[in-house]
Amino acid sequence: MPTVAPPATGIISTDALVIGAGPVGLFQVFQLGLQGLQAHVIDALPQLGGQCAQLYGDKAIYDIPALPSCSGHELVQRLVEQCAPFAPQWHLGELVSSLSKQADGRLEVITAQGTKLVARTVFIAAGVGAFMPRPLQLAGLEAFAGQQVFYSLDDTDRLTGQHVLIHGGGEAAVSQALECASLPAAQRPASITLQHRRDAFEAPAEMLAHLQTLRQSGEVQVVIGQITGLESQAGLLTGLSLLAPDGSTQRVGLDVLLVRLGLLPRLGPVADWGLALERKQLQVDTATFATNAPGIYAVGDIITYPGKRKLLVCGFHEATLAAFAAAEYLAGHTLALEYTSSSRRLQQRLGVQETPRP
Amino acid sequence: MPTVAPPATGIISTDALVIGAGPVGLFQVFQLGLQGLQAHVIDALPQLGGQCAQLYGDKAIYDIPALPSCSGHELVQRLVEQCAPFAPQWHLGELVSSLSKQADGRLEVITAQGTKLVARTVFIAAGVGAFMPRPLQLAGLEAFAGQQVFYSLDDTDRLTGQHVLIHGGGEAAVSQALECASLPAAQRPASITLQHRRDAFEAPAEMLAHLQTLRQSGEVQVVIGQITGLESQAGLLTGLSLLAPDGSTQRVGLDVLLVRLGLLPRLGPVADWGLALERKQLQVDTATFATNAPGIYAVGDIITYPGKRKLLVCGFHEATLAAFAAAEYLAGHTLALEYTSSSRRLQQRLGVQETPRP
Repeated sequence: MPTVAPPATGIISTDALVIGAGPVGLFQVFQLGLQGLQAHVIDALPQLGGQCAQLYGDKAIYDIPALPSCSGHELVQRLVEQCAPFAPQWHLGELVSSLSKQADGRLEVITAQGTKLVARTVFIAAGVGAFMPRPLQLAGLEAFAGQQVFYSLDDTDRLTGQHVLIHGGGEAAVSQALECASLPAAQRPASITLQHRRDAFEAPAEMLAHLQTLRQSGEVQVVIGQITGLESQAGLLTGLSLLAPDGSTQRVGLDVLLVRLGLLPRLGPVADWGLALERKQLQVDTATFATNAPGIYAVGDIITYPGKRKLLVCGFHEATLAAFAAAEYLAGHTLALEYTSSSRRLQQRLGVQETPRP
Repeated sequence: MPTVAPPATGIISTDALVIGAGPVGLFQVFQLGLQGLQAHVIDALPQLGGQCAQLYGDKAIYDIPALPSCSGHELVQRLVEQCAPFAPQWHLGELVSSLSKQADGRLEVITAQGTKLVARTVFIAAGVGAFMPRPLQLAGLEAFAGQQVFYSLDDTDRLTGQHVLIHGGGEAAVSQALECASLPAAQRPASITLQHRRDAFEAPAEMLAHLQTLRQSGEVQVVIGQITGLESQAGLLTGLSLLAPDGSTQRVGLDVLLVRLGLLPRLGPVADWGLALERKQLQVDTATFATNAPGIYAVGDIITYPGKRKLLVCGFHEATLAAFAAAEYLAGHTLALEYTSSSRRLQQRLGVQETPRP
């Protein structure tokens, strides 16, 4: 895993900024590196790989050229290795909140986490959007977010001695319940309750078996029912009211609510950047993969053009042409094609020696 | 290495025919296979891999997505493995001599070797053209081609007991000389002469060392001089006249002349097929990679469009969209995108089982 820069305090200045660290964003970094441009990369997820790692990390992919079979995780690992010579700067777990043009023509990007970058070129490789935790829709809940209600939690100290309620029926919720139960005794919650609207959980068989053991031992309680409202007292969230499948109502108390409904891709602020869109996809010029804004390029699943197919092999091509176009935009003149198999310049950038003839 | 079909006697009927077995042609076969279309493939070279194997087989390539480093030979091998599930039919060592449209709209392709195919769709992935032996320009020489003058030779029996002259200064010529000298004694030529305009040969160091040993032992003679003319007697080629570097003239006798000047890419008959060209490149629609002739697609280094870069990563994208476009052209309606990581249909075509969840 790469070293991630902490949210920066100063303003970062860069030639190239890539938004999205999925396979196409990673290959964008590689192609920029071949052009002599070092990239900063922002992704909303705390790890590399985007949709590819989230949705089919363990599944086999068969249509990457010259890789007859490869898992999503392996593909990401290979692409990370490939762009390593160009030392990209990662800003993970950060969500771009604004993208705007400065008076000098450079692009200012600010993340929700407070990182501020000024880039000469920006590459949007955001796929179907930033993967964000799916929110729980419940009137009045928002007031407790970050205090008692958490969509992600780095610091498990907040759970020690607390009555913890985990909301959700999928792998994210089950996994969170197991994790709470596996904390050292001194750090464990006072109680762990897993709440879902019906008594059926979707997760790998091993995890479900483990959950069953914890239910039987009483370490994890499972409460079934649909949330109908929340209870609060003196500005604190104290419980939820539930409608059980048999029509009865019940109340479940809590100190901390962990909402674990999985991730949801959100196009998010991309839609607000004033770029030309067609049915929520960015429009690009297929010769350069430039958007309608100078210096902003877009590649991968987020774009549309005649004939577009949402395949990685197409995204790799798009990232390649975008890198050429951006390098020419920055250089102010056309650039000749060079081959990695023969160009000394590209081999120096890659940090490799030309293979001597046998 | 694949099993190669002998030149066919009957007419072969196929949905898809790929011209060119370089990396892009091979990936074209794979993408057609995913679409449920089995392909026939023609290439002028006797082996797979085209320019990639010929020009940088042993060199490292660094810019194939998710393959940080890979030789040309390895790349070809991986692509051959990838398209193997679709059982392509190879016609190697055959040069397409004509491509024409039948009254029923299908495309008739005939090779110089006599194979005749009728295809519903044709994919031209011919790179910089067919790799043909570079010819020796010498007035009157053509009359002896195939009798005493050979640009390639499958049958070494023709050399037994003959005075063999090999013309050339590169690896092809040196390799041919070593090969002649390594024939079993009973099959060896009466003499082996390597002739080049100057006493400098370009070949791997090992081969040059071996040649030096054979020169010292007299098994191979080296004659230096520029060919100025040929000698013939009673309809037979008997020798060549040479101008030596010191200005003197000399004569060298021969029974068989092996011209080994390496390979030269020739666009060849592609230029005569009535397709729209721009500076010797085929013009295509970037949504479909169709040429201006219905059913004929073109991909890779032989095509041009705004932004085109002659890179494999671009050819792979082009082949992918061409396969979709052809499949829709044959089906008569649009086709939905499916993913190899999740589609049962694609996995069945690939002959793989979906990876079960761990």
